[in-house]
Amino acid sequence: MTFAATILTLYPEMFPGPLGISLAGKALERGDWTCETVQIRDFTTDRHRTVDDTPAGGGAGMVLKADVLGAAVDHAKSLHPDAPILAMTPRGKPISQDRIRELATGPGVTILCGRFEGFDERLFEARPEIEQVSLADVVLSGGEPAALAILDACIRLLPGVMGAPSSGHEESFEEGLLEYPQYTRPQEWEGRTIPEVLRSGDHAKIAAWRKARSEEDTRLRRPDLWERYSDAPVQPASGAQREEEG
Amino acid sequence: MTFAATILTLYPEMFPGPLGISLAGKALERGDWTCETVQIRDFTTDRHRTVDDTPAGGGAGMVLKADVLGAAVDHAKSLHPDAPILAMTPRGKPISQDRIRELATGPGVTILCGRFEGFDERLFEARPEIEQVSLADVVLSGGEPAALAILDACIRLLPGVMGAPSSGHEESFEEGLLEYPQYTRPQEWEGRTIPEVLRSGDHAKIAAWRKARSEEDTRLRRPDLWERYSDAPVQPASGAQREEEG
Repeated sequence: MTFAATILTLYPEMFPGPLGISLAGKALERGDWTCETVQIRDFTTDRHRTVDDTPAGGGAGMVLKADVLGAAVDHAKSLHPDAPILAMTPRGKPISQDRIRELATGPGVTILCGRFEGFDERLFEARPEIEQVSLADVVLSGGEPAALAILDACIRLLPGVMGAPSSGHEESFEEGLLEYPQYTRPQEWEGRTIPEVLRSGDHAKIAAWRKARSEEDTRLRRPDLWERYSDAPVQPASGAQREEEG
Repeated sequence: MTFAATILTLYPEMFPGPLGISLAGKALERGDWTCETVQIRDFTTDRHRTVDDTPAGGGAGMVLKADVLGAAVDHAKSLHPDAPILAMTPRGKPISQDRIRELATGPGVTILCGRFEGFDERLFEARPEIEQVSLADVVLSGGEPAALAILDACIRLLPGVMGAPSSGHEESFEEGLLEYPQYTRPQEWEGRTIPEVLRSGDHAKIAAWRKARSEEDTRLRRPDLWERYSDAPVQPASGAQREEEG
């Protein structure tokens, strides 16, 4: 099944952009996913093709018009009725790896990219199926860079895209923990050696070391993740261990 | 002063990519920022130009070699000694709008993009000046889409880049709150009208309504931000109000 990515944007020339290169680019050539853009401006009805107007109540910047956005979203829905619709906005729910995995197993995703000060809020009242999603707690010039990141995260999980089939597992956030640190040859570099345990060949010891490092680094670096992880019901440890040993 | 963006990557052709278009593209043409790439592969020393190797201790994927990364980072440091060096990794500290603002007022930023399973950890032990930074709690195929987002967030804050000088304020995360919802013409759309207060012309009432909506939406949508905001020492309300009224 082909994953259908549809991007509603004022800058369709930004796509596929970096996703036309490397892993995602090869997957695009193979037809593992499609990249379709919808120019929001095509849904204006005045002769100046106006997409935005000044904020009601005053303030800086411009707001994307509800009537234009509504028509553009309705068009995208007619193209891919089953694809979830995400609107990139810092007011949205932070994207999670769980949601990325769900999206990647579905028929595709439609992403609405804003510019300027944002969307007329009535769009979300009138089209409650639109998920407001935030990529990170930073403010971008528009939704496009965020859309590229979210599509990249989805595409790498599509069947056949990753080189090694298991590379999608055992990584940061998959169990609510950061990934353990990695090492590779040379054995010694600038006087620093690879930790002894990783050269032991003892799979159980290696798995235990990695789990301990994952937990320790999560606790030190991401108290927010650690709190959620340690509050959660205890998971059977055998699953993780088996994967590591596999 | 020109903001110097330097990206260490295996895919230099991904840059400036979407940042060559629209706001960031015009700023690039004007010389408000420069976009320089460093090909990590140029710092290999074997005839196969090997950048990665299998993980010590086993496991899927490949790990970028410390010796190659170290040489590439040292080269980038020689180009821009004063620019902070960020490595994009899900093991890193989540990027914040505060950090973006700091970066945007500095001489530039050097961003190291990984691929595969990540970086040999010894790089960070031997080059402690490298900040490990995460864009979001999702796993990307490489650091490049994250670097694009971080650069976009910096560039829009550079002097002269934003259309209206005040657009950089009064937005999500600036005070630890989400931005209030926005509305614009038409006055009525699909039976939905712009909230009465925004048409009142009463600046104090509008500012109070916006502040209340910012707080309410943050509390409902982002309990994590709300907790931090409401735990913080009470800020003088007059500052925010004055900005809204200005």
